[in-house]
Amino acid sequence: MLLIAFYIAIAAEAMTAALAAGRRNMDWFGVCLIACVTALGGGTLRDILLDHYPLVWVENPYLLLLVCGAALLTIPLARLVDRLKWPFLLLDALGLVVFTVIGCNIGMEAGVHPIIVIVAGMVTGTAGGILRDVLCNDIPLIFRGELYATVSMITGTIYFLGLTAGLPDNLMILASVIIGFTLRFLALVFNWEMPKFVYDREMRK
Amino acid sequence: MLLIAFYIAIAAEAMTAALAAGRRNMDWFGVCLIACVTALGGGTLRDILLDHYPLVWVENPYLLLLVCGAALLTIPLARLVDRLKWPFLLLDALGLVVFTVIGCNIGMEAGVHPIIVIVAGMVTGTAGGILRDVLCNDIPLIFRGELYATVSMITGTIYFLGLTAGLPDNLMILASVIIGFTLRFLALVFNWEMPKFVYDREMRK
Amino acid sequence: MLLIAFYIAIAAEAMTAALAAGRRNMDWFGVCLIACVTALGGGTLRDILLDHYPLVWVENPYLLLLVCGAALLTIPLARLVDRLKWPFLLLDALGLVVFTVIGCNIGMEAGVHPIIVIVAGMVTGTAGGILRDVLCNDIPLIFRGELYATVSMITGTIYFLGLTAGLPDNLMILASVIIGFTLRFLALVFNWEMPKFVYDREMRK
Repeated sequence: MLLIAFYIAIAAEAMTAALAAGRRNMDWFGVCLIACVTALGGGTLRDILLDHYPLVWVENPYLLLLVCGAALLTIPLARLVDRLKWPFLLLDALGLVVFTVIGCNIGMEAGVHPIIVIVAGMVTGTAGGILRDVLCNDIPLIFRGELYATVSMITGTIYFLGLTAGLPDNLMILASVIIGFTLRFLALVFNWEMPKFVYDREMRK
Repeated sequence: MLLIAFYIAIAAEAMTAALAAGRRNMDWFGVCLIACVTALGGGTLRDILLDHYPLVWVENPYLLLLVCGAALLTIPLARLVDRLKWPFLLLDALGLVVFTVIGCNIGMEAGVHPIIVIVAGMVTGTAGGILRDVLCNDIPLIFRGELYATVSMITGTIYFLGLTAGLPDNLMILASVIIGFTLRFLALVFNWEMPKFVYDREMRK
Repeated sequence: MLLIAFYIAIAAEAMTAALAAGRRNMDWFGVCLIACVTALGGGTLRDILLDHYPLVWVENPYLLLLVCGAALLTIPLARLVDRLKWPFLLLDALGLVVFTVIGCNIGMEAGVHPIIVIVAGMVTGTAGGILRDVLCNDIPLIFRGELYATVSMITGTIYFLGLTAGLPDNLMILASVIIGFTLRFLALVFNWEMPKFVYDREMRK
């Protein structure tokens, strides 16, 4: 079930990334690249940081075809995808929490410190979007809008604490995904944001 | 022969990268950094993704001297290099196909799936330019101009299929380099481009 | 002693990075991310390039807490930190040379070529600031201001040559840190800069 949610989330991330590429008038290769980086970049960065090889998409290259297929399919369907703003925000929220749980899982398998388990979940959930914004030449968006990385951190913490307390894996996956998803949904509805640090003076010469 | 083409291509990439750094008024260290990232970044990223260590330039650090030397030499010669636009576009095309073939080779040695072999070639051929554009704060150019990543994909596919069909390595290197180079040349002459995905609406709030 | 200087430098890098994030109105998570990337990104990139695992902060995750704590502490203290421009420039200079020496050390342990030892020091000392500028969507600053990467290169070279000549490690740490720090200080006071390569023509079509 987590696997099905994973594939759906990958495809949804690819489609929203394709729209971001389209807004910058990229060609079809650019669309595929941005989609791959967004959908698979978080897990790739996590695996590089944890020295966890082979990478997911190197072991299972059909993921690349899924991502590129979903991205290219977005081109003729752009207006439709546009109208489906809320479904895609929800799929993106699903991706965020599913990626986070998978990332925490891999961190725990690697036997790292609890803090790093949570970080592995957050990197998996959020780094794809950051890399997309870097390639599209934006200041990463996720640190200025509704709760996003926070949702990832809370989801990962609940999942990790539950497993550490000896609760069954399936229950904790379900619980942390539902809680994280709900939290992100509420954040979108009520515009919950992290406090911002607004600072105007130039310090460096 | 591939090795000679490799060194020539490395130097040519370093020189065009130096001009890009010069357009942003970087100092000599910036020129060297941008040159190293452009000329060696593709192979470095490929090796990190495939867990293929030591990196080429860590094993053979004289490559760094070659790159920095070519980049610094570009400074007094900028006007000359400027006038030599076509020779450099051709050297860049040579680099693209040579890097691609080398990348596919390393992918095949690593025993990865055919799709990943092609991807390894494409990363080697194109990622240096993408990293250069990210460091220079541009939206990566290669996804908006004449066929570039496509040439890399076709070159890699021909090379891989030929080897898989049992044809001799030297023949396939020659054939794929010539075909890829010709294709890139024709794309430059006739302005062949990938279709673009132009999309104007904002989807996110 | 090097370790104490290391922690102080990490915290100082985190605080100046937090100000950079504040200038872009990032939220608290963005502040922590930029601080982590700036303070720990250089060492992380070095370790990835040298295949030197586990990463420093994966092995010692309390570093992440130190960095995030220093970054968040900067928020209420921003005006004070602003007024302390010189102390922070000096702490940044300390960080530059300390990170460089540590990076050279790890390079020598890994048994790489002398050129790569110096490069490992430079990556450790300077890459964090470059990554920060990429995430903040700036052209990296360090290649346009007072001597910075040069200081790192000289510091690393002195340290490496001293050790190779058989001088005791502690003496060479002290000597290279003092010389490097003084050099950076003088560069700031007298505005010593590398020559710039200013080039205006567009070469590519």
